[in-house]
Amino acid sequence: VTLQQVEGEDEVGETAAPAAGRRREIRDAAARIFAEKGYDAASIQDVADAVGMLKGSLYHYIRAKDDLLFEIVAGVHDDAIRNVTAPGADDGDALARIRTFVERHVLFNTQNLTAIAVFFRDFLALREERRHEILAARDRYTALLRDLVAEGQREGLVCPDVDPGIAALAVLGMTNWVYQWYDPAGRRSGAQIAAAMADFAVAGLACDPATHRPGHRGAAGRLPA
Amino acid sequence: VTLQQVEGEDEVGETAAPAAGRRREIRDAAARIFAEKGYDAASIQDVADAVGMLKGSLYHYIRAKDDLLFEIVAGVHDDAIRNVTAPGADDGDALARIRTFVERHVLFNTQNLTAIAVFFRDFLALREERRHEILAARDRYTALLRDLVAEGQREGLVCPDVDPGIAALAVLGMTNWVYQWYDPAGRRSGAQIAAAMADFAVAGLACDPATHRPGHRGAAGRLPA
Repeated sequence: VTLQQVEGEDEVGETAAPAAGRRREIRDAAARIFAEKGYDAASIQDVADAVGMLKGSLYHYIRAKDDLLFEIVAGVHDDAIRNVTAPGADDGDALARIRTFVERHVLFNTQNLTAIAVFFRDFLALREERRHEILAARDRYTALLRDLVAEGQREGLVCPDVDPGIAALAVLGMTNWVYQWYDPAGRRSGAQIAAAMADFAVAGLACDPATHRPGHRGAAGRLPA
Repeated sequence: VTLQQVEGEDEVGETAAPAAGRRREIRDAAARIFAEKGYDAASIQDVADAVGMLKGSLYHYIRAKDDLLFEIVAGVHDDAIRNVTAPGADDGDALARIRTFVERHVLFNTQNLTAIAVFFRDFLALREERRHEILAARDRYTALLRDLVAEGQREGLVCPDVDPGIAALAVLGMTNWVYQWYDPAGRRSGAQIAAAMADFAVAGLACDPATHRPGHRGAAGRLPA
């Protein structure tokens, strides 16, 4: 079962397109309610009330609260993958592709704050096999960025001293964390934050092979021993 | 009321030192239980069982589950502040102080995974005035790093194009995120991860005034328009 397949289930008695729209509406309402009340405190009745359906009709789409959580978490992950792999992702050298990845990922996060918050706070509440599926999907997402960093090293654009695994987790940390503090009404737009983070990531990874000396990154700003 | 003061309450009938040790033991047990079961699902009885006390005796130390959560969250924050402001924090130029801050903060996180996870996942469950107190304390912590970045700009060591507010949140994001993926049994030690993140942060912020041109960070790895 792929994450995408969950989208296609249960459209009994409706054509696929309206059912998909309804599922999306249910998923968005559930994300808002889980984000506000917390997953444990929220009920299926709350979600039914929010979308104006009887609880019995909602069971046509989902069987249990865990299904709703999985729809949110798998759905936001699928959207995130589509976002960073959309046309343009492969344009330019590895530094350009890292910049594109970071800008797209940050913009996506600022535009999907509610679902992202549920993703990171509540995915541990999923039952075990679904939790493992999501963790595996997160690992594949991380690997996209780790591979870009390693590719940048092969191209001579990313400092050879960088550990691609730690670098990918560092960049995803700084960009995922945006859901903790981003204010859509704040003075900095999502695009400004995305550009600043892309600048930071590129500057933090790049170095010039002509001036590179092993360990130079660790020596910058280092106190004398 | 400061965050520290909560530590000193309720030591009726005991000398302060053993009571403080017992409070710490209760706090650590509660953090483990909240991290495992989730705050909503955990009960005061679970915590009493974990420390081998009767529930009635536990009420000698705390009045409600919210008190336990606040002890954990305020306690880990106080420890984190002491960690980054301990002697040595002011040594060297601003880049050296940024390096010290990042290394200490990452090491602290890798050594306090359980309490950090509760801090970030569950502080929203605190009742309102306590939640605001914690958010204000987090803002002060962020300001420590933001001020270091701004100081680095005055010293001509940090790129003038950097937004100190976004930079501080970016660095805290990448370093806080460690609780999501760090594995104490993994092949990279906390010290190695701390050093890699400090290298990344310093490289991501620094630039040479002699070669600085406005916007050069945004131009690196930028596709032609």
